[in-house]
Amino acid sequence: MHSQIKTVNSTTTVPGDPSGKETIVVALGGNAILKPGEKGTFAEQMTNIGHTAVQLARLICEGKQLIITHGNGPQVGRIFRQQELGVQAGLPEMPLYICGAMSQAQIGVMIQQAMHNELVLAGCPKTVVTMICQTLVDQESAAFRDPTKPIGSFYSEEEALKAMTEKGETWKEDGGRGWRRVVPSPEPLEIPEIKAVKLLIKKDVNVIVSGGGGTPVARNSGGTVAGVDAVVEKDLVAQEVARAVAADTLLILTDVKHAKINYRTPQEQKLGEISLAEAKEYHRQGHFQPGSMGPKVLAAIRFVESGGGKAVITSLEDALSGAEGKTGTIIKRSGAADGSPG
Amino acid sequence: MHSQIKTVNSTTTVPGDPSGKETIVVALGGNAILKPGEKGTFAEQMTNIGHTAVQLARLICEGKQLIITHGNGPQVGRIFRQQELGVQAGLPEMPLYICGAMSQAQIGVMIQQAMHNELVLAGCPKTVVTMICQTLVDQESAAFRDPTKPIGSFYSEEEALKAMTEKGETWKEDGGRGWRRVVPSPEPLEIPEIKAVKLLIKKDVNVIVSGGGGTPVARNSGGTVAGVDAVVEKDLVAQEVARAVAADTLLILTDVKHAKINYRTPQEQKLGEISLAEAKEYHRQGHFQPGSMGPKVLAAIRFVESGGGKAVITSLEDALSGAEGKTGTIIKRSGAADGSPG
Repeated sequence: MHSQIKTVNSTTTVPGDPSGKETIVVALGGNAILKPGEKGTFAEQMTNIGHTAVQLARLICEGKQLIITHGNGPQVGRIFRQQELGVQAGLPEMPLYICGAMSQAQIGVMIQQAMHNELVLAGCPKTVVTMICQTLVDQESAAFRDPTKPIGSFYSEEEALKAMTEKGETWKEDGGRGWRRVVPSPEPLEIPEIKAVKLLIKKDVNVIVSGGGGTPVARNSGGTVAGVDAVVEKDLVAQEVARAVAADTLLILTDVKHAKINYRTPQEQKLGEISLAEAKEYHRQGHFQPGSMGPKVLAAIRFVESGGGKAVITSLEDALSGAEGKTGTIIKRSGAADGSPG
Repeated sequence: MHSQIKTVNSTTTVPGDPSGKETIVVALGGNAILKPGEKGTFAEQMTNIGHTAVQLARLICEGKQLIITHGNGPQVGRIFRQQELGVQAGLPEMPLYICGAMSQAQIGVMIQQAMHNELVLAGCPKTVVTMICQTLVDQESAAFRDPTKPIGSFYSEEEALKAMTEKGETWKEDGGRGWRRVVPSPEPLEIPEIKAVKLLIKKDVNVIVSGGGGTPVARNSGGTVAGVDAVVEKDLVAQEVARAVAADTLLILTDVKHAKINYRTPQEQKLGEISLAEAKEYHRQGHFQPGSMGPKVLAAIRFVESGGGKAVITSLEDALSGAEGKTGTIIKRSGAADGSPG
């Protein structure tokens, strides 16, 4: 657990943490579950998750306390498509945010089981649970005035207009390919269930939470909440979880070893350990792709800015050395100034 | 929390429980989510769950610590049907036990949200979480040699034979209506994640777990687990949760106020407070319908036999007085001998 007062380059334990363990929030990218070009069968997903679980189990056996978040794009897309087919066959449908919760369980239980097994095989069995978490968002924010995130299949203009009129949804014409529903992508404000996450990690339970950015809810004036159809950026939710539990490390695992500046230009350069100020400057200059490396770097910046020890962006295969700050793009409040690969 | 030595008619707190609260495992019947004749729209389910949440919030505001389990029949049936339609459209499918986990999240997040809101409105806000729990079963047990639980749609003999040959599934001809897949309905042995449930309820978090009987897994020789396509009776899983957390009360909420003997005969009689011995005798005599009141009475018997304070079977509307042992069919180790309605 970090605190605002500890030195920023400390990656070891902090006296304030009774368990004496380094707490790491791991944000798994889509490639931890499905590889590009795969069809998405159960067998494929379990194979990929099995490899992921080996990495995660290693971290736990090394004495780290994990909180795991993950993406859900292809999975929730399929649940949504199955629902569309169901509607045509007369079956009632659930809102997008309930489909998202379903994907949290679908993916969570696979990770939970694979991790349980890898921990047993590694001789350090631990309890791993999936908790369905909500993500509080602000329905008055700009994101709700201009929904941008496309979901579901392409439909005709007539069908889109019908959905807009009857359901109050927002649909947009998508580059000549037809009409698609779009939903907002708001900022995560709070995880209502965070107390439960904190209680569990203090007692050596590893928790899978907020998959796909969690189930978005908005607060009414009376303090009650209601689900909203939106997609919260999963890396930013991982950052909010990491901030709220005062994690030591935010470890963002993806399909590349480093973030890069001047990406796909002759000046392309891998980023190793960089300072918070450098990361902010590169982000401001637009070096990182929106919807891809952009939100990862933003999540890393926010975490370190909120007092987190270090944020690391690296590949799934390098999870262990990444967690130790030896590989990947490492952001600390005052990191090395050369920006060379670590 | 109960202990083996306390007097059986104690429904108040036990010195051994640091929180000083009565712990109740609530097993919600299907009617808590969907009423007979409803289509199963999201709005219908949220309305029903809203009414259910009022009852559950009352119990919490009265100072009870809740663990909630629930059925998932219509919901997992629909997820499965949507998958079948998806397969026809070329989408990959997930095993039944993953569909079950998805239904845990689908229903869990609705209950979680509705309870959060009722607790806010009642002025006693608490954290409520949904945890995706597995249920350990024995793949060598008799249930796996004779699968009995039908799932999914009716298919032709040709399609059934294909699934039996290619996937090793068991299918049965169902009274001239076609062929249906059948899966085992094994006994619950253990909840692998129970440690996390115990930790949370000690700290005032109300937990929704093991919906639809949980995600069935079997243990391999090395101690690893694997999901199995089976349906574990939800009331028996509620009982196993109640036993494992040493709950004071198992409260089984359904659509009737009492269990009955000589059901639908001129000798029909409501059961009020009865002893464990009476309950066992009535159960042995076959008074309770399999798949309906039968497993509820069996769960109640097992809970009291394992040392639980009391088990109550009553209607959702009578949750509060049922929890207090004032309404419903109440089973204690040595209850009143007259068997009259309480």
